[in-house]
Parts: sequence; C-alpha cells; structure tokens
Amino acid sequence: MKKYDQLVTNAAGRIVPAIVNGKSQTPYMGIGKFRPTGNKAAPPIATCADYPADGNKLVPTLRDALIRCGLRNGMTISTHHHFRDGDLIANQIFDIAHDLGVKDLMWFPSASFPCHAPLIKYLEDGTINRIEGSMNGPLGKFCSEGRMKGLGVLRSHGGRYQAVQDGDVHIDIAVIAAPSADPFGNANGVDGQAACGLLGFALADSQYADKVIVVTDNLVPFPCIPWQIHGNYVDYTVKVDRVGIPEKIVSGTTQITRSPDRLLIAEMTARFCEQAGIVRDGFSFQAGAGGTALSIGIYFADLLRERNMKARFMRGGSNKYLVKMLEENLGEYILDGQTFDLDGVRSMRENPHHVNTSPFTSYNYHGKGNFASMVDVVILGATEVDVNFNANVVTHSDGYLLHGIGGWQNCLFSKCTILPIPLFRDRIPVIRDEVTTLCGPGELIDVIVTERGIAINPKREDLIEKMKDSDLPIKTIGQLKDEAEKICGVPARPDLDDEIVAVVKWVDGTVIDSVRKVRT
Amino acid sequence: MKKYDQLVTNAAGRIVPAIVNGKSQTPYMGIGKFRPTGNKAAPPIATCADYPADGNKLVPTLRDALIRCGLRNGMTISTHHHFRDGDLIANQIFDIAHDLGVKDLMWFPSASFPCHAPLIKYLEDGTINRIEGSMNGPLGKFCSEGRMKGLGVLRSHGGRYQAVQDGDVHIDIAVIAAPSADPFGNANGVDGQAACGLLGFALADSQYADKVIVVTDNLVPFPCIPWQIHGNYVDYTVKVDRVGIPEKIVSGTTQITRSPDRLLIAEMTARFCEQAGIVRDGFSFQAGAGGTALSIGIYFADLLRERNMKARFMRGGSNKYLVKMLEENLGEYILDGQTFDLDGVRSMRENPHHVNTSPFTSYNYHGKGNFASMVDVVILGATEVDVNFNANVVTHSDGYLLHGIGGWQNCLFSKCTILPIPLFRDRIPVIRDEVTTLCGPGELIDVIVTERGIAINPKREDLIEKMKDSDLPIKTIGQLKDEAEKICGVPARPDLDDEIVAVVKWVDGTVIDSVRKVRT
Repeated sequence: MKKYDQLVTNAAGRIVPAIVNGKSQTPYMGIGKFRPTGNKAAPPIATCADYPADGNKLVPTLRDALIRCGLRNGMTISTHHHFRDGDLIANQIFDIAHDLGVKDLMWFPSASFPCHAPLIKYLEDGTINRIEGSMNGPLGKFCSEGRMKGLGVLRSHGGRYQAVQDGDVHIDIAVIAAPSADPFGNANGVDGQAACGLLGFALADSQYADKVIVVTDNLVPFPCIPWQIHGNYVDYTVKVDRVGIPEKIVSGTTQITRSPDRLLIAEMTARFCEQAGIVRDGFSFQAGAGGTALSIGIYFADLLRERNMKARFMRGGSNKYLVKMLEENLGEYILDGQTFDLDGVRSMRENPHHVNTSPFTSYNYHGKGNFASMVDVVILGATEVDVNFNANVVTHSDGYLLHGIGGWQNCLFSKCTILPIPLFRDRIPVIRDEVTTLCGPGELIDVIVTERGIAINPKREDLIEKMKDSDLPIKTIGQLKDEAEKICGVPARPDLDDEIVAVVKWVDGTVIDSVRKVRT
Repeated sequence: MKKYDQLVTNAAGRIVPAIVNGKSQTPYMGIGKFRPTGNKAAPPIATCADYPADGNKLVPTLRDALIRCGLRNGMTISTHHHFRDGDLIANQIFDIAHDLGVKDLMWFPSASFPCHAPLIKYLEDGTINRIEGSMNGPLGKFCSEGRMKGLGVLRSHGGRYQAVQDGDVHIDIAVIAAPSADPFGNANGVDGQAACGLLGFALADSQYADKVIVVTDNLVPFPCIPWQIHGNYVDYTVKVDRVGIPEKIVSGTTQITRSPDRLLIAEMTARFCEQAGIVRDGFSFQAGAGGTALSIGIYFADLLRERNMKARFMRGGSNKYLVKMLEENLGEYILDGQTFDLDGVRSMRENPHHVNTSPFTSYNYHGKGNFASMVDVVILGATEVDVNFNANVVTHSDGYLLHGIGGWQNCLFSKCTILPIPLFRDRIPVIRDEVTTLCGPGELIDVIVTERGIAINPKREDLIEKMKDSDLPIKTIGQLKDEAEKICGVPARPDLDDEIVAVVKWVDGTVIDSVRKVRT
C-alpha cells in the first residue's frame, strides 16, 4: 500500500493527496461546502446472550482482553489522551501486540504525548503502520523525518468524532483507560487515583468500535456513577495496578504568564473584547490553559466582577482559575471537555454546574449543530499566521510537526475567534506570507492580537466599525508583518522535501493540507 | 397491504404471523436463541452547515416544524410517554397531520394512554394506519375489536429501543415533548411545570430518527442542564404554552395498598425474599409503583433498617417511598427509568445518587449486556399466569388488550423474578391452564406469590432447597390453581375470533404471540 497517491490542488490552493493509506479522500472544498451524503457508521448488533448475565465482564489481563477481541494484523486500535503525558496503557497494548507477533496496526489515539516515544520501535519494526491522531513531540518529529511507514493523519477533536461516526475510520478495538469503572464497564474520570475529570475523547470509540475494553485501576461495584462511558458498549473489563501517573495527568501547576509581553497581549485581548462589546452579561467564552489565555480569563473575571455581570457559560479545558470563576458565580456553567488540574477534577466531581461535554456535543461538524459555533469569543494559539489570516497550529516554522490540532479547528466557528500571539518567537516572525501548514482558513479567524498591535480581519467590518475610536493599536496584518520583519528580518522558508508525511483534515473530513518531510 | 400473513407456530407453540404490516418477522425461537447478524441502523449524516450557527433552532409552531420535517403519507411518527395520561402533544401532531391531509401514518409511541382516545377518529379515517406501542385503555379496546387498519405491535421498553437500534422500526419524525429545553434542543425532564423526571423513553428516537423536534413549555437559554436529550440530535425546537397537565403526569398520590389480601401477599413476598437470602447487604431490587409492590418495598426498608444493611441499588419507577429509602441511606443509588411522583422528580433533580437510566442502559437486549439481568430480585405484576409459569401482562382474561408491556419482559431477566398476584380477580382465577396471551416465558419466572400460597418454579431447585424448612405456605402451582377453581369454578375461555389484531414481540424482536380480536 502506497502512503499516498494522486496529488490534487484543493480549494485552499494546497496540494494534497486524493488517496491516503489506500483510502479515497475528498480535498478541502471550502467552509461548509462539502455535503456528506451517506449514513453514519453502523456497528454490529450485539446480543445480551453473549454477555454475562451478572454483568461481570472482567478478564484477568489486558492481553487476555486483546486476544478475546481477536487482535490481528492490520487492525485499528484506539486510545484516548485524557491521561496526557501520564498514560500507562497505550504502550502496553503495543508491547502485547508485538509479543503476539501482530503487525501493521493503525494506532488511532485522540492524541499522543512524549510518554509514547517507546512506540517508535514498533513504528520501525512494523508492529504499528502509522498513527492517525495528534503527535505531540517525539512521535511528531519521527513522522516529520519521513520515518513512519504509513501516512500520518491529523484530525481535530471534532474531526475525530466525525471520522468515526461517518465510518471514515473503523475502530476494531478501543481500549479505554478509566480512573474508575465497574465490572460491567461503566466508567468515569472523576474518581480514583488517576482521576482526569472526564472521558469524552473516548465517547466515539465506545459507541462505534467493534470491540471495547475498559481498563481501570479503581474497580468499584456496579453501578459506577457517573457512567461517563456506558458499560452497555463495553465487551471486556480489566483491572490493573495503575492506569496513569497522577502528577503527569493533572499537573496542578497551571500558571498565568509572567512575561511582560504576554501580559500585555492578554490585557490588549481582554480590552478588545470589552470595547467590542463581547464581554457582556450572559456572554460565553473559551480560552485555554496556556499562560496568556489564563491571564485573559483573569481579566474577564475582573471585568465581570466590577460590572456585576455573569457569563452564561465558560468552555473548558478547565483549570483552577475557571473553577474559581464558577464558584464566585461569575459564570453560570463550565462546559468542559478536559480538566487540566485537580481543581478542575474536583469541581467536575462536585459541582452540577461543571458539566462534562464530548467532541460529539461540542465539536462534531457532522451533527445537527454543535456547541462551538455558539460561543461568543474563543481565544486560541497558533504557531504561524499569514497575511490572509490563515493559521497553522501543527508545524513550527522549521517544518517540524510537533503539535496536534485539538479542538482548535472546531473552535474557529465561534462568533469571534481571536489569536493572541507574540509578533515573533526566538526572533522568528510569526506572521508570514504563507503558513507552512494550513490548519485554519483565514475567513474564520477574526482578530490577531500581538504585543505591537491588533489586526482585525477585513471581513469583519462590524468589528472594525466598533473599534474605530478605540485607543488600542489597531493595525493591518501587513503592518504587523512589516514591523516584525523590520526587527527580525524576513524569515527563511523551512527546508522541506516534496515527500508528504502527513495530512491535515478539515472538520468535515476533507483534506486541507499536507505536511512535508523535513530535510535532516 | 395486508395486516398480516403467513401464520406459523413459534418455539413457544403460539401461532404468529411471519409477515406483519408488510414486514418479515422472525417467530420467537426461545430465550437467547435468536442471533442478530446485521448492523445497527445508520441514520443519515448531518452537517452543521445546515443548522443555525447561533444554535437557535426555534420555529414558530409544531405545524411549521412538522412541515419542515417533510411530514407526508406513510411516515412513522414517534412520541414518548413520560407525561403519561397528562400528555398534550401527541394528539396535536395528528390534528396537524389530519389538517394537512396526510394519511397512513404509523404512530410509534413508547406508550399511549386514555388521554389519546381522541386519536380513534384518525385511526378510523386513515390518518393513522396503526399504533406500534403500548395501548393502555381505550386504544387497546379499539384494537381488540379489530377496528385498527394496521396490526398493533407491542414491544417492551427494551424491545422498543432494540427495534429502533436494529432498524426494525425506522422513525421518520420524532416529537419529543420536554419539560425544559433550550433553543438548540438540549432537553430534560427535571425542570419546568411539566417536570416528569427524565426523558429516557425518547432516547432511541433522538439518536435514530431522521428528524427530531423538541417541543417545550419551558424554554431556557443555552445550555439546558442537564441535557438528558442532546440538542446535537435535534432539528427543530418549538415553544408552546403547555406540554402536559402536571397533575396527570405525576399524580403525587402513590398509595400503599390497604387491601388485607394484598398486604398479606406483600408480606409473604418480603418474607420469601428474606428467607431465600435475597435481602442482604449490597443487594438490589426493582419493585414498582403498584400498591402491593410499594408495600413490599416498605417491608424491605424495615428489614434493611433493622439489620443495619443497605441496598447497593434500587431500580425505579421511583416514588416517595423509594426516595425515602435513598434519603435514609437504606440504598446507595436509585437507578431510575421513570418518576411516578413529585418526590421522585425532586430527588432526581437534586440527588446525584438518583440516577436517570434509559431503555438502552437498562433493557436493550441487543446491547453488550444490560442492567436488568444484574438485579437480584424483581417484583412484577401479571394479568394471568399458567401452570408452566408463563405469564400474560397485556390482555385480560376476557381477551381485551388493555395494557402495555412496559419494562416487564426486560425485567424477567433478573436473578429472581417474583409475581405477587391475587389468586383471583372479580372471582376469575388468575392461574390458568394456558395464558390468553404469552408475554413472558415461564422459564424466566421464578416465584408466584398469592394470598393462599407461594409456588416456586420447579426449575429453581436452589430456591426450593432454600425454602424447604420455611414456615411460608409453599405449594405447587397446580395446587394453587386447584384452590382457586374450587372457590370460583373453572374460568371460561375468552370469546375470541381467529383474526389477529396485534402481535407481542419478545425482547429480541421475534414474535412471541398474537392477540386475537374479541367477539363483541
């Protein structure tokens, strides 16, 4: 099987393969232009006659469970990333597969982290053909260097749900590591030593995989409440000593930025939102867990407190600052997709106004609407932005694929998307003529905030009008780019080979861009 | 289209049609014998591009919503019965259909009640072809008299989920009346004037219908929390003045029985459970909301309190007595499928240990297990039982179809199924040579408790052994039948025509029996 074939130019002017890992692809057609015509994936019908009447699905080991699931060459194995860099299960799956002599697997994680670097040996020896999923750090570097046998496929959280729901990706075996579970397979992320808050990234896997294994280190008697994962989707349960390393799951060290430049960016972003009338009683926002985003949240909190206003809902990734806002009644609900610290976990466990969401509710573009487009303002990062407001979030300017998409693409659909970014990083300008990798089309990106000025997308005439008398330094994106280049010079283009090592999917499953091999 | 065709004898010896309303059927094959081979139903893939970005799916009227959903001849329209006899929406749907001249609809309610008697005119004029769903009261009588154009199809709660999930029934338009909802379609049953507790009976409808309409009289801003129904499945929302009549939704008048015979039956049932070792620390039970069942629950509560024990979980239908047990910490969780009174609603709203369930989690036989088989003891009613422990729950001994199956068939899978029934009703013996309609195979029914003795199914040698020294009046079912007939005489057989008016499905979708026309 060729990694890819049949290069075509998509609607964004990017060259992408029309065949990826042997499967036909639809090149990106523009926002909202691709119209799905088929039906959702249809998992096999199960029968209770095949499952223990007493609900006890425990098998002795993960190895037993994988064998009973019929693990064999060429299968797709999925995992979730709620344990982030503290995951202890994914590597074991492939140790077992290797030990059993199984080859050519597709690993379909919701994201991979540096802790998964040991899997490189299996990517090299053919146990794993490829990763379709975010590759943060070493696995991304491995992919960038053209060393992965199959082609990498990057999807957003919503795109991953869409791909599974639509049958673009068929999961043979889903392994769901759970901080708490009962023998029937009901599972949650709020209790247990590896508590990670919720398990939403594994929802599609539970619903659509042929076989589902729940692995836990905290087995409770039926019923495990809440059941964020329904045992009715689960084939086998396994009790292990540890599913994750708590201090790497929730660091507890979320910190607001101390960099004066970043604090300035945060303040400018918050003031922009205030002056543009976005921060109002009943508004909604999604920031993030990065230092700048946290600071923006704190500005929002101050503003709400001063004016005796309240957000209707706040989107997580949650952290102690967001939880504090909820507890101080500055916001009515946290709608949360992942918890980033122990305060987030506690709040989700205890507070009915801290609600767990999933890529289905929040981000799936092939649903009957989703939450992302209802959010008044979303604050996101980017590795690069170009003069047409297109943005990159997966590769660095040297071409290395080092980050996943996360919910980033999905969040672009909010009513106002703001990217607060430094004008340059390590003396390399962030605003370019063209992004190395296109992840987000410029027409969805409304505002760029840098320490030296704010650029509003010319399409957002309403925002330009609202800000015309602002004391904030409103500039064009060209002006910002020129300023950066005056200081740092025109940045070099990355040294890339023609060979494609990965593709980036748009939220509707079409291919928006290719990632090319880095010359080493 | 013929109502039915090709009569065959199924594994229970019952004559059933192999074709019902034009569709091929599988005759009942025995418990756990039918093996589904296909895949689940696959609804069409939607796209956010077709839904309002601001999440506002409101249309002015139910009529508008139905027209936008493409209401036309021959469609299947579903509703839920959480409002019981207080439902104000179902009749409106068919008023609109009639007004639009639409014909030949299939109504697929999770149950119908006397309040739906006005629909008889539409069954007569061809607006509605048939009802597939429980027909409590007048609609059942109408069906029994052979006046329905299509054949009635009765399914259990779990069987209804199974039928939708497996694609046996394709819902064109689901109308979900909700006590509380937001414009996006997130909905729940815990808030609002028509609060009914939960909306689980509408879950399959939301997941699998082509089009979904949420109708509410309590519109809240996004997000409606909890979202028992996900707005991501919803096409349109409608705000109306009233969705239901509160006092008919939750009567608030659940009463324990005062009949000395029924109190005796309740006491004997509770003592049986005690002596058989079923009531123990960590056990689970499901009773019901009938007077006898409530009394049994009170005996259980007394026993637990005395012995300082606690149930691990208690299955609802919830009511004030069950809620009291939860609040008194005599049980750890209520796993609830419907709330029968205001205490149930309040508890579900406020108490995280009062958990809402659905026919998917509790009863779907075509899942990877379900909750029903994990319950230690279930207390159920029956209209008739025969000498082989087969039971009937839908027709009376005069042959009239007056009740739905509810979760009854699904509950038979519990570890011990007990039917506490009077030996005769209105001087008609309840234990017969053969039940008029077979709803539950005798091999799943373990114990019959009457005011004059307890019969244990000979298959349950373990229970017979445990009770061999009991002071309770353990008898054979034959003895009980003889006693009844000595008092009341041998009951007459119902006066039935050969014509079939409805079929009863087993939990796996096979046809277990036919209901015949009553000669009038």
